Amino acid sequence: MFYHIKELQFRAKPEKPDPVYARKLQEVLGGQYGEMSVMMQYLFQGFNCRAEQKYRDMLLDIGTEEIGHVEMLSTMIAQLLDGAPADQAEEAAKDPIIAAALGGMNPQHAIVTGLGAAPTDSNGYPWNSKYIVSSGNLLADFRANLNAESQGLLQVVRLYEQTTDPGIRDMLSFMIARDIMHQNQWLAAIEEIEQLDGPIVPASFPRERTVEEATRQFMNFSEGEESRQGRWASGPLPDGTGNFEYVAKPQPEGQIPILGPAPDHQHNAPGVKPYLSNPGK
Amino acid sequence: MFYHIKELQFRAKPEKPDPVYARKLQEVLGGQYGEMSVMMQYLFQGFNCRAEQKYRDMLLDIGTEEIGHVEMLSTMIAQLLDGAPADQAEEAAKDPIIAAALGGMNPQHAIVTGLGAAPTDSNGYPWNSKYIVSSGNLLADFRANLNAESQGLLQVVRLYEQTTDPGIRDMLSFMIARDIMHQNQWLAAIEEIEQLDGPIVPASFPRERTVEEATRQFMNFSEGEESRQGRWASGPLPDGTGNFEYVAKPQPEGQIPILGPAPDHQHNAPGVKPYLSNPGK
Amino acid sequence: MFYHIKELQFRAKPEKPDPVYARKLQEVLGGQYGEMSVMMQYLFQGFNCRAEQKYRDMLLDIGTEEIGHVEMLSTMIAQLLDGAPADQAEEAAKDPIIAAALGGMNPQHAIVTGLGAAPTDSNGYPWNSKYIVSSGNLLADFRANLNAESQGLLQVVRLYEQTTDPGIRDMLSFMIARDIMHQNQWLAAIEEIEQLDGPIVPASFPRERTVEEATRQFMNFSEGEESRQGRWASGPLPDGTGNFEYVAKPQPEGQIPILGPAPDHQHNAPGVKPYLSNPGK
Amino acid sequence: MFYHIKELQFRAKPEKPDPVYARKLQEVLGGQYGEMSVMMQYLFQGFNCRAEQKYRDMLLDIGTEEIGHVEMLSTMIAQLLDGAPADQAEEAAKDPIIAAALGGMNPQHAIVTGLGAAPTDSNGYPWNSKYIVSSGNLLADFRANLNAESQGLLQVVRLYEQTTDPGIRDMLSFMIARDIMHQNQWLAAIEEIEQLDGPIVPASFPRERTVEEATRQFMNFSEGEESRQGRWASGPLPDGTGNFEYVAKPQPEGQIPILGPAPDHQHNAPGVKPYLSNPGK
Amino acid sequence: MFYHIKELQFRAKPEKPDPVYARKLQEVLGGQYGEMSVMMQYLFQGFNCRAEQKYRDMLLDIGTEEIGHVEMLSTMIAQLLDGAPADQAEEAAKDPIIAAALGGMNPQHAIVTGLGAAPTDSNGYPWNSKYIVSSGNLLADFRANLNAESQGLLQVVRLYEQTTDPGIRDMLSFMIARDIMHQNQWLAAIEEIEQLDGPIVPASFPRERTVEEATRQFMNFSEGEESRQGRWASGPLPDGTGNFEYVAKPQPEGQIPILGPAPDHQHNAPGVKPYLSNPGK
Amino acid sequence: MFYHIKELQFRAKPEKPDPVYARKLQEVLGGQYGEMSVMMQYLFQGFNCRAEQKYRDMLLDIGTEEIGHVEMLSTMIAQLLDGAPADQAEEAAKDPIIAAALGGMNPQHAIVTGLGAAPTDSNGYPWNSKYIVSSGNLLADFRANLNAESQGLLQVVRLYEQTTDPGIRDMLSFMIARDIMHQNQWLAAIEEIEQLDGPIVPASFPRERTVEEATRQFMNFSEGEESRQGRWASGPLPDGTGNFEYVAKPQPEGQIPILGPAPDHQHNAPGVKPYLSNPGK
Repeated sequence: MFYHIKELQFRAKPEKPDPVYARKLQEVLGGQYGEMSVMMQYLFQGFNCRAEQKYRDMLLDIGTEEIGHVEMLSTMIAQLLDGAPADQAEEAAKDPIIAAALGGMNPQHAIVTGLGAAPTDSNGYPWNSKYIVSSGNLLADFRANLNAESQGLLQVVRLYEQTTDPGIRDMLSFMIARDIMHQNQWLAAIEEIEQLDGPIVPASFPRERTVEEATRQFMNFSEGEESRQGRWASGPLPDGTGNFEYVAKPQPEGQIPILGPAPDHQHNAPGVKPYLSNPGK
Repeated sequence: MFYHIKELQFRAKPEKPDPVYARKLQEVLGGQYGEMSVMMQYLFQGFNCRAEQKYRDMLLDIGTEEIGHVEMLSTMIAQLLDGAPADQAEEAAKDPIIAAALGGMNPQHAIVTGLGAAPTDSNGYPWNSKYIVSSGNLLADFRANLNAESQGLLQVVRLYEQTTDPGIRDMLSFMIARDIMHQNQWLAAIEEIEQLDGPIVPASFPRERTVEEATRQFMNFSEGEESRQGRWASGPLPDGTGNFEYVAKPQPEGQIPILGPAPDHQHNAPGVKPYLSNPGK
Repeated sequence: MFYHIKELQFRAKPEKPDPVYARKLQEVLGGQYGEMSVMMQYLFQGFNCRAEQKYRDMLLDIGTEEIGHVEMLSTMIAQLLDGAPADQAEEAAKDPIIAAALGGMNPQHAIVTGLGAAPTDSNGYPWNSKYIVSSGNLLADFRANLNAESQGLLQVVRLYEQTTDPGIRDMLSFMIARDIMHQNQWLAAIEEIEQLDGPIVPASFPRERTVEEATRQFMNFSEGEESRQGRWASGPLPDGTGNFEYVAKPQPEGQIPILGPAPDHQHNAPGVKPYLSNPGK
Repeated sequence: MFYHIKELQFRAKPEKPDPVYARKLQEVLGGQYGEMSVMMQYLFQGFNCRAEQKYRDMLLDIGTEEIGHVEMLSTMIAQLLDGAPADQAEEAAKDPIIAAALGGMNPQHAIVTGLGAAPTDSNGYPWNSKYIVSSGNLLADFRANLNAESQGLLQVVRLYEQTTDPGIRDMLSFMIARDIMHQNQWLAAIEEIEQLDGPIVPASFPRERTVEEATRQFMNFSEGEESRQGRWASGPLPDGTGNFEYVAKPQPEGQIPILGPAPDHQHNAPGVKPYLSNPGK
Repeated sequence: MFYHIKELQFRAKPEKPDPVYARKLQEVLGGQYGEMSVMMQYLFQGFNCRAEQKYRDMLLDIGTEEIGHVEMLSTMIAQLLDGAPADQAEEAAKDPIIAAALGGMNPQHAIVTGLGAAPTDSNGYPWNSKYIVSSGNLLADFRANLNAESQGLLQVVRLYEQTTDPGIRDMLSFMIARDIMHQNQWLAAIEEIEQLDGPIVPASFPRERTVEEATRQFMNFSEGEESRQGRWASGPLPDGTGNFEYVAKPQPEGQIPILGPAPDHQHNAPGVKPYLSNPGK
Repeated sequence: MFYHIKELQFRAKPEKPDPVYARKLQEVLGGQYGEMSVMMQYLFQGFNCRAEQKYRDMLLDIGTEEIGHVEMLSTMIAQLLDGAPADQAEEAAKDPIIAAALGGMNPQHAIVTGLGAAPTDSNGYPWNSKYIVSSGNLLADFRANLNAESQGLLQVVRLYEQTTDPGIRDMLSFMIARDIMHQNQWLAAIEEIEQLDGPIVPASFPRERTVEEATRQFMNFSEGEESRQGRWASGPLPDGTGNFEYVAKPQPEGQIPILGPAPDHQHNAPGVKPYLSNPGK
C-alpha cells in the first residue's frame, strides 16, 4: 500500500517557460528509458519477487522513489508550458522566432493535455509496458535495471546540455545524482549475486547440455579481422571456463532447409484444380 | 553489404511436429528479447558506430550471426507446424487431446502465415523496434546487449524445460551455447571500457554539477528496513567515490507544486462566461 | 448495409491552405478522441447490441453520421495541404517563415499520403481500436460515449482558438454544434437507464457480496486533508445507500505478501548447482 | 513524493493455484480498463492539475490508492501461477484436463515473467498510455474517470462470475466495493461542477458561434424510425436550451468535394512525361 | 454523407454457437487484412482522391460496401458467442471438451465485449491504421488494394476449411465471391492505368537520373544459382526497357563507412575528462 | 547463414549535414514501406518458403540485398546528423533559420540515438512487423511485394524532390534504380504464376461454392453513377469467367440482425434485481 506527501522530492521550477524544451523533456518522462519505465519496472519486479525479502523491499523502495520522479518531471513540464502561444497561431507565425517555437512544440500539449505533461515520449509516442521486464531471475533483472539507468542518465545528460535554464538544470542535477546512485546500486547488487553464481544468466543450465565449444568462439562473420583486436576475441572468458577463440571464417553446421509442401487446406500450391480438403456438407 | 549461404548455422529439425510448441517458440524469435531483437540491435549499433572500427566490425559480426539465428528459428517453427490439424477443427474438437492442441495453437499460424513462422511473440504481438536501443555510447549499449542476452538465454532455458523433443533440444543446445558466449563477449567488452572510464555511464558529466550526496544515498521509501541488508546499502560505492549511505526516512526537499491556472484558450476554467480568447473575424 | 451520397454533411472549405494547421487538425480526425474513434465506437456498439432495437438503431444512426464527419475532416485536411512547399525545401529554408512552416508540418503529408489526410493523430501516431469500447452494458457504454464527446469537443474548441480562417471556423462551428447535441443525447440516454437501475454499473451485483463499508469511504492516502472539502467526501452517496465517510488515515487490511520460491523449471534460484527439472532424453 | 508500506490494502490469497484464471485476471490489471489505467490516469490528472488544491489532493489520493490495487492484483496473479505445470508439457498433454489448462494459459507467464504478473491484458497485449487521458478540464476528465470505473467494475463482476475460489472472490469483493465507491465519488464530483457550469463540456464556448439548430437535432441516418422512441429524440435538452428535434431524413448542407490535382512534386498524375519539379543540379 | 439500412447485405447466421471459431473469425474482421482494413483503406483513398471523379466514386462505392461487411462479420461473431460457457469455468474445466473450448476462446469476449465482436484480430491485437495506405498515386494504391483482397481472400478460404457449419459457410461463400470480384476490379483498374503509363510506379521519374544498369540486374546475393531459373532473371523486362541481367556475384560500389566521432554534447567518447560542451551559467 | 562485407553496396555520402532531411529520410528506412519492411518481408517469405527452391533462393537473394539498403540509409542518416546544433538550443533559437531547423529535427536524434539512425519512421513511430506479410501463397505474397516496391519507390521519388544535395541524390538514384528493378522482378514473377493459375488468389477454391453472380457485380453504393465509367464496371472480367455487371442500386439479401439478449453472467440487462449466475460458495 502506498501513501503520498505533497512536497516534491526535489525542486522542480524553471526560470521561464519553454514549450519546445517541454517537448524534449517528455523523452525522459514517458520514453523508452524514461522515469515511467524505471518506476513500473521496479514495482513489477518487487511485486513479483519470490526471493529474500530484502530484495523485494529494495525493489519497492526504489520503485516508490521513481513515482516521485514522474511527479517532478510532470510538474516541470507543466510549468514549461505556461504561456505557450497556442491561441495566436496566425499572428505568431509572422514572427519567425515564435513560428519556430510553434513548429517545435508538441501540438498535443495545446490540444489534448491542456498544457500538462503527457505519458509519452518526445515524439508523442505513448509509453507501453514492453519497455519493461520482470523475469523472476534477479541477475537478469538487475542487468535490465543497470541498462535502464545507464541509458536514462545518458539521455538526461544530453538534455542538460540542451538548456541553460538554471531551474531546469537544478532539477536535472538532482536526477543525474540519483541515476548515478542507482547505477551504483545495481552494480553492487549484481556483484553480490555474481559472487555466488558467476556471471552467466542463468547459472543453472548444465553445461554438458550445450555445444560447448560454441560457448567460447567469437565468430567473424565478415571479411577483414578488425574484430580480432578486442578483449572479446582472446584471453580468458569472464565465466572462467576457458579462453575466447577467434573463428576467422565460421562454417555452417546445419542442413539446407527444405520445407515440405504446405498442406492442402492452406491453398498455397499453384497449378492444382479447385478443391476443398474439408468439403463438409 | 551482405551475402547469404544456404546451409543453416546449426541443425534445426524437430523429431515430430508440435504446433503448440511452435507457438511458444515464437517468443524467442519475435518477442521482446527474441533473436529479431538482438539482430536488429547489433546491426543498428554497428551501422551507427562512431568509435574505433574494431567495435563496428565486432557489432556487425554478431549482428550478422543473429540474422542466421532468426533463420534457424523460423525453419524450426515451420517444421513444428507441419501437419497441424487445421482443416478438421470440428472433428478434432471431439478428441480432447487434439481439441486442447487446437486451443493452444496460435490461430494465425493456420490463417495468416500458411504454417510458417511469424515475426511476433508467443501471443501474436508484433515485434517492434522499441525493443532495441542504439545510443552511440558504447558502455550504455553493451549493457543493453548483456541484458538482452541474459533475458534471452533465460527464456531459451525455460523453453528447453518445456519439451523433450531431441531435435528441438539439439538446436536449443547450440543457441544456449551462443548466448553464453555472447554474455561472455559483452562482459569482456564492458570490462575493457570500464577500465578506462569507470562504471558510471556517461563518465563525462562533471560531478560538481550534481547534488553530490544524492549519488551515495540509498533511500528507504518504506516502513521497515529489510533493504538495509544488501550490498547496495553499505560499503564502498562501485564507482569509488565513497560509501553507500542508508537514509532510513527520506525527506522531501522540493516545493509543494502549485500550477498556475490554465490560460483562457484551453477552456478549462469552471464558472466563467462563454468567451473566445482568439475571437478572430 | 450502407449507402453513400456525394455531398458533405456540411461545408468544409478553408479560405487558404495551411499545412501546419492540417497537422493539428489530424488530432480530431485520427487521435484518441477523434472522429474515427466515435465512428467506430458507435458502429461496434450498434452491431453488438443485444438490447431493444431502439438502442441499436440509435447507435447506428449516430455511427453513420460520424462516418460523414471523418469525410468532412479528411476533405478539409486535403485542402489545407494544397500548395505545401514540399519541393523547395532548401530554398524555402532560407525564408524563416517558410522554414518554420516546413518544420511544423507533418513530413508524412508530403512523403506518404500525397497531401491527403492520414488516419493518425497530430503526431503521426496511428489510430488503433483500443481507443474504443463496446462492452454490451448500455450504461457503461453511454458513459464512454459521453466521455468521448466531452474530450472531443474540448479538443475542437481548442483548435477553433488556434485559427481565424473563416472556412475552417465555419466547419468547426457545425462540428461543435453536433458534439453539443451528442453530449445532450448521451446525457438523456444515461438518464433513461439510471432511472431504472440507479447510477452504479452494473446494478446487478449483490451488495452483500461486497465489503460494504468500503463502498462509502473516501480514503485520504496523503498527509493533509484538502480532499475533505469536496462533495465526494461527505453528504449522501449518489447511489442512495448512505453517506460518504472520510477516512483520514486508511490502514491496510491485507497480509504482507510473501511469494513462494519459483519452481525449479524457471531457473531463478541463485546458488544452486546446474540441473534440469525436466531432463528428458 | 510517495511512501510504501508492506501490507496490502486488502487480502489477496487464492485458495489454490489456477494458471488459466491468472491469465484472465490480467485483463483488470493491465487491460484497457485495468488498475494500471486508473492508477496512471489519476496520477497524471493530479500532477497536471491547475485547479483548486482540493481537486489535486483528491486525484492524488485515489491515484495513490490505485497503486496499491496494482500491487494486490499482481500478488494474486503470482500466487495463481504457483505450480503451473510448465516443465511437463509433453506428459501433461496426455491428460486432457491438464492439456486444456496448458492451452488456456498465457505462455509468457512461464517463459517471460517467471510465474509473475505481466503488465499486459489477458491476451498479452501491453498496457499503453493511450488508455488514459488528462485534459486539464475537470468535467471532461471526471467523465473519463466515471467511464473507467464503470467499465472496470463490469469486467471485475464478470470475472467474479468465472470463479468460485473463495480467496479470489474475497479480494474481488473488496475491489468491487472500491469501484462502487469510486463511481459514487466521480458522480458526486461531476454533480458539483455541473451545478456551476451545466452539463456541456466545455461550457465556455459561445453558443452563437455554433450552428445552433444542430445542437438540438437527432438525425435519423437510416430507414425506419425506431430511434425516435428514446429520450434522446424528444423532450427537453439536458443543457436546458430547448427541446430535442427528430430529423427523419437528414439532408446534406455541404458541397460535393472536388480536390485540386496533386502538385507535380508528388508524382501522382498519370499520363505525363518524366519530369522533376525540383531538378536541382 | 452516409445512410444505413437495417438489413445485412447477405445472410449471417450460424447453425450453432462456436466461441472458438468466433475467435478465429476475428482475424478477417480486425486483422491486418480484415474487413476493417479494406473499409478504411478505400474510404481514405476516396476522401483523398485528387483524380477524376470516377475514381473517387468507385473508391467510395467499394469502401461503403465494406462497412457492410464489417457489419456482417460482427453480427456473425456475436451469434457464435451465444451461450459461451463463461460462468461455469471451474465446472466446465472438468469436461475436457469444454475445457479445451474455454482454452481456445478469446477471454476478452467474455470479459470485455459482453459476447460481442471486438475490433481486433484473432489474437486480440487491435486494428490500427498502419495496416492501410492512401498515397495519392492511383497505380500504387490499386496494387495495395489488389494485395489486400488477395491476402484477405486467402485467409477467408482457410477459415472456410476450418468449419463445416452451413450458416458460416453460407456467409463466407458470399464474402469469397465479393473478394473474387474485388480482385477482378483492381486488376481491371490497374490495367487501365498501366496502358497509359506502363507498369512502373511512378512513371514520371526521369530514367536518366537513375543508375540505369541497376534497373535491369537481378543480383544473386548467395552462393548457388537456383534463382537464375525464374522469369525474373532473364528475358524482357516488363517495363519494356531491355532484358533482365543475372549478376552472379554482385560487387559493392560504395565506400567503407567511417563515421566521424560524435560531438562532445552527446557524451559518447570514452577516456575523456568530465566536461560540458554547453556549460551555461 | 549470412556474411557481411564492409563496403556499402553503393555510395552514401551527403555533401553537407542536414538534420531536418535526416528526419524525413527515416520514412524510407523505418516507415511502413521503408527498407526495413522489404528486408524483413523477403527474409520471412524466404525462410517460410515451401515451394520450389528457386523461389526460396530468389526471395533470400533480394532479402539479403535489402539488409544492405538498410545499412546505406543508416549510414546516410548518421552523416546528415553530423554537426546538428543540439547543444546550443537557446542561442540558436535566436537565429530563426537555426530555430526552424531545430523545430524540424527529430528530438530523439539528439537525445536517444546519439546522432545515429533510428529504426522508426519520420515521426518517430517504431517499425513493427505488422507492416509485413508472409502468407505461404506465392501469388498473394508477390503482390504484397509489388505493392511494397511501388509505395516505397513513390516515397523515395518524393524525397528526391525535397533535396538538391548531390550526395543524397547520388544514393537515391541508385535506390530508385533498384526499386524499378524490383518492380520489374515482381511483375515477372507474378506473370509466371498467373499463367499457370489465372489471376485470382487462391485459384484453388471451387467456384461453385461461391455466390457466383456476386463475383461479377460492381455495386454502386452511392447515388450518381460516375463509377460506371471505369474498366471495372463493364467488359470482360480479368479472370475470364464472364463480364462485369453494374448494379446501379444494390439491394440487401440478408436479415435484419436481431441478437439474443446477453446471458446473465455478463450483467448487461437493465431493470433486474441483483443476482449471481454462478453464486458459488
